[in-house]
Amino acid sequence: MAKTMAVNAGSSSLKFQLLEMPAEQVIAQGVIERIGMDDAIVTIKYGADVQGERLIGHLEEDDEHITLSKNGKGKKYENVLAIKDHQQAINFMLQKLTDLGIIQDFNEITGVGHRVVAGGEWFNHSVVVTDSVLEKIDRLADYAPLHNPANAMGIRAFQKLLPDALSVAVFDTSFHQSMPEENYLYSLPYEYYTRYGARKYGAHGTSHRYVAARAADMMGKDLSALKLITLHLGAGASITAIKDGKSLDTSMGFSPLAGVTMATRSGDVDASLVYYIQEREGLTNDEMLTILNKKSGLLGLSTISSDMRDLLDVQDTNDHAKLAVKIFVNRIIKYVGQYIAEMGGVDALVFTAGIGENSAPVRKMIIDRLSYFGIELDADANQTRGQEIEISTSSTHVKALLIPTNEELMIARDVEALK
Amino acid sequence: MAKTMAVNAGSSSLKFQLLEMPAEQVIAQGVIERIGMDDAIVTIKYGADVQGERLIGHLEEDDEHITLSKNGKGKKYENVLAIKDHQQAINFMLQKLTDLGIIQDFNEITGVGHRVVAGGEWFNHSVVVTDSVLEKIDRLADYAPLHNPANAMGIRAFQKLLPDALSVAVFDTSFHQSMPEENYLYSLPYEYYTRYGARKYGAHGTSHRYVAARAADMMGKDLSALKLITLHLGAGASITAIKDGKSLDTSMGFSPLAGVTMATRSGDVDASLVYYIQEREGLTNDEMLTILNKKSGLLGLSTISSDMRDLLDVQDTNDHAKLAVKIFVNRIIKYVGQYIAEMGGVDALVFTAGIGENSAPVRKMIIDRLSYFGIELDADANQTRGQEIEISTSSTHVKALLIPTNEELMIARDVEALK
Repeated sequence: MAKTMAVNAGSSSLKFQLLEMPAEQVIAQGVIERIGMDDAIVTIKYGADVQGERLIGHLEEDDEHITLSKNGKGKKYENVLAIKDHQQAINFMLQKLTDLGIIQDFNEITGVGHRVVAGGEWFNHSVVVTDSVLEKIDRLADYAPLHNPANAMGIRAFQKLLPDALSVAVFDTSFHQSMPEENYLYSLPYEYYTRYGARKYGAHGTSHRYVAARAADMMGKDLSALKLITLHLGAGASITAIKDGKSLDTSMGFSPLAGVTMATRSGDVDASLVYYIQEREGLTNDEMLTILNKKSGLLGLSTISSDMRDLLDVQDTNDHAKLAVKIFVNRIIKYVGQYIAEMGGVDALVFTAGIGENSAPVRKMIIDRLSYFGIELDADANQTRGQEIEISTSSTHVKALLIPTNEELMIARDVEALK
Repeated sequence: MAKTMAVNAGSSSLKFQLLEMPAEQVIAQGVIERIGMDDAIVTIKYGADVQGERLIGHLEEDDEHITLSKNGKGKKYENVLAIKDHQQAINFMLQKLTDLGIIQDFNEITGVGHRVVAGGEWFNHSVVVTDSVLEKIDRLADYAPLHNPANAMGIRAFQKLLPDALSVAVFDTSFHQSMPEENYLYSLPYEYYTRYGARKYGAHGTSHRYVAARAADMMGKDLSALKLITLHLGAGASITAIKDGKSLDTSMGFSPLAGVTMATRSGDVDASLVYYIQEREGLTNDEMLTILNKKSGLLGLSTISSDMRDLLDVQDTNDHAKLAVKIFVNRIIKYVGQYIAEMGGVDALVFTAGIGENSAPVRKMIIDRLSYFGIELDADANQTRGQEIEISTSSTHVKALLIPTNEELMIARDVEALK
């Protein structure tokens, strides 16, 4: 059967998932970290329950080893070795997939879908990668200087090694290209929009798109007839208003800094205050941006951790942790209210990503604050982690759904659709 | 009867209103502009209908002249002369009030209330000015560098000329000091709050407080039992959620830059984008802040005018004007939605300030977009300008009220209350 690979290439890492399509079955997934170092780490999970079980039990003692899952069905390959670049990383990975018997031949992989962070206004859906597409991805590096060059590097490396596979670019931003101008434009001099593309692009589009489609399925309704608010709450977090199946508005902005409180990102902040702090602290623009992106959010407020689990653990005895959790919930409530007003109602809230899928307390705090809109939590159902379930009561006016996101599957589907 | 003066001192201007208290009757109002210049302009309106009529008909031909209102009841004194500082401006004004027979003696003015822009966390209500209060107002100049020094200058000048009058400071920010920390804190490193007072202070507090009290009166309800959203929509614009008679949240932030789209201010904007533009344009921090404060908002989007009336006039034929109006309304809808979510409902929306009091089309656009929440416009009532009236239909779930603001009266009342 044809296999499709979903790839997320970073500057020094490469994550992948190999799926059998159209069966949508995951055959293997893995990550290569510390690319460019002498001690790069390769991890590949494979076997029948690749997505499940905790893996235990070493087969070998040296760097290159395989562990077995508890039930003996899944396997994990690990190795530490020198890997000089993405090309070598991908070559090694494909070779290893063959060695491990996961594939027999490189040519089984007939499509590769690449996550690309910034698609600007050029891409409102996934596309087959051509020279012109690659050139645009390069040029869009202005908007995602850490990501787009790495994404392009991944695309080029795969094209060399798998010249016959269909190469597809799937953009984080493309789903949000349906936003109307009143939502994507800032109230800045208009010439900045035409000159620099100064507008809201949003992010996490593949995730919002995936969970919205699943929500419609779960509700037995046409996506085009629904008003949804999708809450992608991970280390990065964004909230999207989806009307008629299209992104109407989203909380991230020109960059992923804007919107709700995140693990280490501030979300919305008065620009005057940013300058005020910068000048008092004697920081450069880049240093201030680093503080807004890496030292703010849950970490900045709590002073102890960027991880919601840590904060929930200690919030009863730590005022800073409690405050950070409270503000995290508060900002989400504000965006939900905004989007209900913009759409003139809402049929369902959809929780996804790390916190959204796994934190029953956070979901409860959010839903309890929204009872005015006719949302009521089913406390038992809310105890569920990481699987699709309705967590609102059956009588509730507005549904609340827990839907684990699956960007890799969405990428693989986009590759299939373009074949 | 005792007279109270409400004063708003700027760096080169001074506005005043003289009221008979507690009758709350305006006796005179005026402004001295271009203080420090050889051609400063003094204007004083007085007479029976000081707040109404257009004034016409010159009595004299030289710089100092008085005009009569159409119905002959109101008068306007005007003069152009050299005024070197606030002290001289106030001295001239008080002398002229005496010459014109508006007061017989300086000592009739038993209280002077001063608008002060920044009160920081030190002032959560109006206070009698002491040396310590004045020192704090000076120190708070960090937060309002253009305003607090001028406000303090006005206070000192009046204290010299009217040493026996009660001097009261009325802060733009004090009403918002009731905000809970989840609303006033940004998701920044917590130390910036303790070190620099980096938080939301809001503005227009005197206006929001005034119209909220009037709204409760009009509704025949206790303010403490209401959920109100007050929309102060002028050249500067802010929206406040008022619950239990207290400001729960407001759209302006650390500075007046944040929040909704304004005449020339951007309102909320992704801080990353601000830096992005700044670097591409090669601007200093101050230059970029000037663009955000003076060249953005309605002016920046429309490219033609910062005045809503101009934009409404041409929006049918000018796409930029139409876009600016649309975005202005859009941002207001978002804040209303936020505040409904935060308060868990709303009993009334209150429109005030220049656009809020006078623009029927803008009020209509806003209310029409909020029908989901049970607000319905009374199209006839909405044609009213500048007077208190309910503009929602009688059957409506959430009321909409038009209430002209009156910060001067609120200031005079605060002076009375502290006598």
